[in-house]
Amino acid sequence: MARSRTRRILVRRHDAGASRRAPDVVAVEEPLEIRLDGHVVTTTMRTPGDDHDLAVGFARAEGLIDGVALREVRSCGLGLDERAAFNIVELDTGGRAAPPMPRLTTQTAACGVCGSPAIDELLDRLRPLDGTAAIGVDLLVAMAARVRPAQELFATTGGVHGAAAFRPDGEILVVREDVGRHNAVDKVVGHLHRDDALPAGGLGLYVSGRAGFEIVQKAWAAGFGTVVAVGAPTSLAVDIARQANITLAAFLRPDGINVYAPESPRG
Amino acid sequence: MARSRTRRILVRRHDAGASRRAPDVVAVEEPLEIRLDGHVVTTTMRTPGDDHDLAVGFARAEGLIDGVALREVRSCGLGLDERAAFNIVELDTGGRAAPPMPRLTTQTAACGVCGSPAIDELLDRLRPLDGTAAIGVDLLVAMAARVRPAQELFATTGGVHGAAAFRPDGEILVVREDVGRHNAVDKVVGHLHRDDALPAGGLGLYVSGRAGFEIVQKAWAAGFGTVVAVGAPTSLAVDIARQANITLAAFLRPDGINVYAPESPRG
Repeated sequence: MARSRTRRILVRRHDAGASRRAPDVVAVEEPLEIRLDGHVVTTTMRTPGDDHDLAVGFARAEGLIDGVALREVRSCGLGLDERAAFNIVELDTGGRAAPPMPRLTTQTAACGVCGSPAIDELLDRLRPLDGTAAIGVDLLVAMAARVRPAQELFATTGGVHGAAAFRPDGEILVVREDVGRHNAVDKVVGHLHRDDALPAGGLGLYVSGRAGFEIVQKAWAAGFGTVVAVGAPTSLAVDIARQANITLAAFLRPDGINVYAPESPRG
Repeated sequence: MARSRTRRILVRRHDAGASRRAPDVVAVEEPLEIRLDGHVVTTTMRTPGDDHDLAVGFARAEGLIDGVALREVRSCGLGLDERAAFNIVELDTGGRAAPPMPRLTTQTAACGVCGSPAIDELLDRLRPLDGTAAIGVDLLVAMAARVRPAQELFATTGGVHGAAAFRPDGEILVVREDVGRHNAVDKVVGHLHRDDALPAGGLGLYVSGRAGFEIVQKAWAAGFGTVVAVGAPTSLAVDIARQANITLAAFLRPDGINVYAPESPRG
């Protein structure tokens, strides 16, 4: 059964001093619990749809299923009510998955020298990418317009982010939407993983919003050589992209973009 | 010592087919570890600045310091390097704080009937607000323009969110900025808490982005009667606001806004 991703509600609409009751469409936000071999690894607030991709992509980004075959991905919770059943996804590797790592948001007493065990762990786990294909700047500038027609939820709600994977020739492989930008990226990564298309090598990752640490972390774990973001990057996103050898283009304009990583050579 | 909230970097700027090396300013993003009586309760990626407010606001939203006096709030980590020292904040209640609750993002085997222990916990912990002052729609529509002059980081980076608390007469009490919208709200709430101005009662909370579950949850915990968001709300944000008796106005336009909660009466 497909879950609804939008909901129609009545709102009071105020415009230019007048007010009326009017229908509106909002993006659905519900919790999804992700389990790996019976252990809860996270609960994320997400827009229903592509939940299996989301769970797989999240596990991939966290390094939980590196080199491990997924035996089954299933929505579970039989015996509970229907809503709960659809808000739990179980990843089954037959117990061969890596034990969950402490996450940024998980309680932990560990503290790396830089103040962040999460960043230390990332730099320990991942190696800089090499041999990633350069994607033309003109194509990067064109990505927002190319992806937008597939952002159906955004068109109806105005309240969700989109992410997409694309080839150097501009072909778009997959577009996913979610109230959480990080979830949209996880859904894209999970789709590619299940399609046996990772590491993403020559592919580019498009995100409709800003680029923070988390987005670049997920791109790195999936092997994307290029990340293009509509919004601004953060200092840490730039640092991590430079370290990972990822091309980070952001602050998209109608006829321009900034390339933040790799570091720009003189001239 | 004030930490820098922005960083100047050189980027490659592409515009209309031409390319040049140009300076750019990005918002700093660094992890902040929040500890309560010696226990780590979360690590959040944030923009440095107002870290004590952020830590207090986070603890308040999670219900960790309800009815408990803070003896001291301090940046700690002496003996580690300087960066680590400034990326840890310790809240000291002399051991009288509530034990940390399992968070959305924390590993837990518990699962409420609705699929989310976090939402169950919220509804258990908080009571609907009553007697909150109505704030005029014209003022809500004007908030973005009124707050923007104080959004210094946004002006220089274009990459951070702003949050503000304001009175029904329009007076703005505090404005805070952060790469994370939830952090900006925590900073506002923490400031008010330390100013002994909570519950926020008749005050309004402004957020520069969208309104999801987390934003309304934080507003509820702090007692804001009104939330106004520039972007779209999610279904869960609307549900929670209606349950909490919070006025939720969102999807701000130059001369209009939608009121999503309370439910709009006929006519």
